[in-house]
Amino acid sequence: MSLETAIQIMDYLGVAAFAVSGALKAGRREMDLFGMFVLALITAVGGGTLRDILLGRTPLFWVHDANYLGLCVIATLVVFGLQRWITRGERALLICDAVGIGVFTVIGVSCAQEAGVGAAAAIALGCLTAIGGGILRDLVALTRPVVLHKEIYALASLGGAALLVLLNYLGAPATLSVVACGVVVTGIRLLSLHYGWTVPGTAFLTGQPAGESPFDEQH
Amino acid sequence: MSLETAIQIMDYLGVAAFAVSGALKAGRREMDLFGMFVLALITAVGGGTLRDILLGRTPLFWVHDANYLGLCVIATLVVFGLQRWITRGERALLICDAVGIGVFTVIGVSCAQEAGVGAAAAIALGCLTAIGGGILRDLVALTRPVVLHKEIYALASLGGAALLVLLNYLGAPATLSVVACGVVVTGIRLLSLHYGWTVPGTAFLTGQPAGESPFDEQH
Amino acid sequence: MSLETAIQIMDYLGVAAFAVSGALKAGRREMDLFGMFVLALITAVGGGTLRDILLGRTPLFWVHDANYLGLCVIATLVVFGLQRWITRGERALLICDAVGIGVFTVIGVSCAQEAGVGAAAAIALGCLTAIGGGILRDLVALTRPVVLHKEIYALASLGGAALLVLLNYLGAPATLSVVACGVVVTGIRLLSLHYGWTVPGTAFLTGQPAGESPFDEQH
Repeated sequence: MSLETAIQIMDYLGVAAFAVSGALKAGRREMDLFGMFVLALITAVGGGTLRDILLGRTPLFWVHDANYLGLCVIATLVVFGLQRWITRGERALLICDAVGIGVFTVIGVSCAQEAGVGAAAAIALGCLTAIGGGILRDLVALTRPVVLHKEIYALASLGGAALLVLLNYLGAPATLSVVACGVVVTGIRLLSLHYGWTVPGTAFLTGQPAGESPFDEQH
Repeated sequence: MSLETAIQIMDYLGVAAFAVSGALKAGRREMDLFGMFVLALITAVGGGTLRDILLGRTPLFWVHDANYLGLCVIATLVVFGLQRWITRGERALLICDAVGIGVFTVIGVSCAQEAGVGAAAAIALGCLTAIGGGILRDLVALTRPVVLHKEIYALASLGGAALLVLLNYLGAPATLSVVACGVVVTGIRLLSLHYGWTVPGTAFLTGQPAGESPFDEQH
Repeated sequence: MSLETAIQIMDYLGVAAFAVSGALKAGRREMDLFGMFVLALITAVGGGTLRDILLGRTPLFWVHDANYLGLCVIATLVVFGLQRWITRGERALLICDAVGIGVFTVIGVSCAQEAGVGAAAAIALGCLTAIGGGILRDLVALTRPVVLHKEIYALASLGGAALLVLLNYLGAPATLSVVACGVVVTGIRLLSLHYGWTVPGTAFLTGQPAGESPFDEQH
């Protein structure tokens, strides 16, 4: 099996996991069946969409490859029909999600470097591909973006993206670089879930009374 | 009167209705006059903007045709000046809004098919054109996106978009396809308002305790 | 020092001020260190990003010029490390922010006019460049967009953008037009902060009971 095929399969796996997490979130926010599909789609293709918009790569991947839309329809119907099973399968979902951010990071960095951008931007766009969908999902559901709060999620993607850019710079073989990046992202994410690692918080800033500054008006 | 002229007139009518709904929402959320204009603009051109960004069709329609900006300015001033009258004219607003989603669906599907995308993507982009502005309006106002909650709104657009793609595939005359799509969308929306039809909800998913999963952190 | 150099320096100054305001907001919303960086980046380059996406100017400025990413990293670390000092330096931050919206308005109008758009769209895009980042910052933090609420902020940008378009139309020398626009925006903003000027509100609209209309479902 070629590297491209393996990436494609893991891409679909990640998209399906992200779509399920979007549909679940919509269900918990009492959206209707259509809202579940919209949130599944936003979650699954949102990060790649933001990346391609920023790079000017249009029409977008999911506009040309109907498999992405199809996966989101299936994920929505599965969540709607089998919700008891899905909510018990949390662990499997987290593992697929971790595979997803690994492969999304690889794809994001690769697309950015193909477009000829510099190292810092390639890392940023790789990370955006992995975490953008989750941020959009949480915003549309009007909940706090979990990837911006203390769990090791975005940092795993950031580390893998930096590694991939470094290995490409050093001229490492594509297969090695890509596998290393994916393994690092998915591995850090799974280890941090297992051991409960967190990112330094910023709670010390919240001592200041809210509403004191024009930058701080509360909802 | 040609089909193009008719579509253009209904497009402006829909844009005006969407702009009014955005300005009203801003007023109810205690935004200032400028905020009313911004929300009117986001609501009126947001769906078409998302569609054109996803298709790579830039500069955007409302950047080139200043009538859209003008309609939003007028809608804002009308809501600001005549708010008593406007809030009583809820029924007229809902009818204009229903015409709007009909014509926006037609325009969205047509733009997508001109850009050469497949059937599923054309349906998705037609629907996005119709509902995208309303979703953005509700997000910027930090309220739940009403089109993702139980009312028959997005589904009307989805049905009409699918019909238009099917009729185009079968080679039906453009006038027939376009009119059929618009009538179906607007008709289903008006009938569902009249009879109070709703989409199957997902409340059963909300039985699970919140905060149990990393996908479920609450605001 | 040439006009271009002066604009570039003030651009970086404004970006740094916007990045600090984003990182501060993230801290007050209890995001982690990475979330602070993301919000700093969104705030600092969000407005220009929206403008370039709407104009189809890709790849984006901050993808090609890594200084923007670097400024956001520095701003994040400064806020994280020196938060006591930063929260006391509110006044300095507001002044840098006012310089920022002045120069962002100039850059936004100039980019739009280079792309050949009309007067109304150039004004709108200049204003969007100045206020877009702040709106995105507040949305991602799930707080009300302050620039859409009663302070003179967007209106300062709007006035300066209209002046710049007018002066360009009249054939005034570039240096004069640009300086006049920047001074007007920054000056109005600083004066309004000093004297506490506000925009007419829309509170009268909120007398209507919430939830009465499908356009009004509350969060």
